[in-house]
Amino acid sequence: MKTKTLETLFHETLKDIYYAERKILRALPKMARGAQSADLKAAFEQHEQETQVQVERLQQVFELLGKPARGKTCPAIDGILEEGEETLESFAGSPALDAGLIAAAQAVEHYEMARYGTLCGWARLLGMKDAEKLLTATLREEGATDAALTQLADGSVNRAALEAA
Amino acid sequence: MKTKTLETLFHETLKDIYYAERKILRALPKMARGAQSADLKAAFEQHEQETQVQVERLQQVFELLGKPARGKTCPAIDGILEEGEETLESFAGSPALDAGLIAAAQAVEHYEMARYGTLCGWARLLGMKDAEKLLTATLREEGATDAALTQLADGSVNRAALEAA
Repeated sequence: MKTKTLETLFHETLKDIYYAERKILRALPKMARGAQSADLKAAFEQHEQETQVQVERLQQVFELLGKPARGKTCPAIDGILEEGEETLESFAGSPALDAGLIAAAQAVEHYEMARYGTLCGWARLLGMKDAEKLLTATLREEGATDAALTQLADGSVNRAALEAA
Repeated sequence: MKTKTLETLFHETLKDIYYAERKILRALPKMARGAQSADLKAAFEQHEQETQVQVERLQQVFELLGKPARGKTCPAIDGILEEGEETLESFAGSPALDAGLIAAAQAVEHYEMARYGTLCGWARLLGMKDAEKLLTATLREEGATDAALTQLADGSVNRAALEAA
């Protein structure tokens, strides 16, 4: 058996986040449809477009690695998205729904930040400069999305949830 | 049926992170045993002690809320920890094991940062000043743990994984 190296780990983690991104891409329209506030709907729609580009960046990283773009089941994102679906169902019609959807989306963003942060460090170490650049671009976007969601929560959504209560 | 309010959402999320913290508490000794580097072992052991305190803080928040401290299954942390276990098994004996364990631990930290960040905002809005203080203390610790893990990865663990390859 070949020894598992840092490159093996990089490749495995790439497959993990590739599965995750594509699953997120399918979840975002449901979240957009469920959101009550127009601003939150727009935020989810915008993030869907960004996610499409992020999937393409991952495909480029696979290419740089000389491997086919293939995902592998990621129980972490399955669980995180399952909780989001549960919020969508159990808080349907509640004034707190949007606050719950933002919380769900921020759990997704944080998972991605963890994975991309790790992948950036490994790409740098493996001397994969072009891959590092692609991964860093996505890492920055995920951070910006998370910050925008916090702003949306603090600015209007949480207060609306409270006032309607 | 009673309308679900922001307080309901706060309570549900508290149960989610309470389950998560107690599950993390059981996972950390396994990660410490698996880690190859003495520094990483020590980091996991230290975080186990911190996690114990974080569990107690959550019990205090339940008390402030006038509810019994009770968890509810959190598929997100189940999935995140499952991936960590998989790394432990499939990279056993690999020079990249510690790098993989740090990645797993940072996914855990990021999940916690997302949840505590959300809970802090909601506690503030609900006027639960004491709860906010407790949750903020933990949020800061999780951020510090994440930063310490990055430092450990960049400082020695990742390089060791690469040199041994």
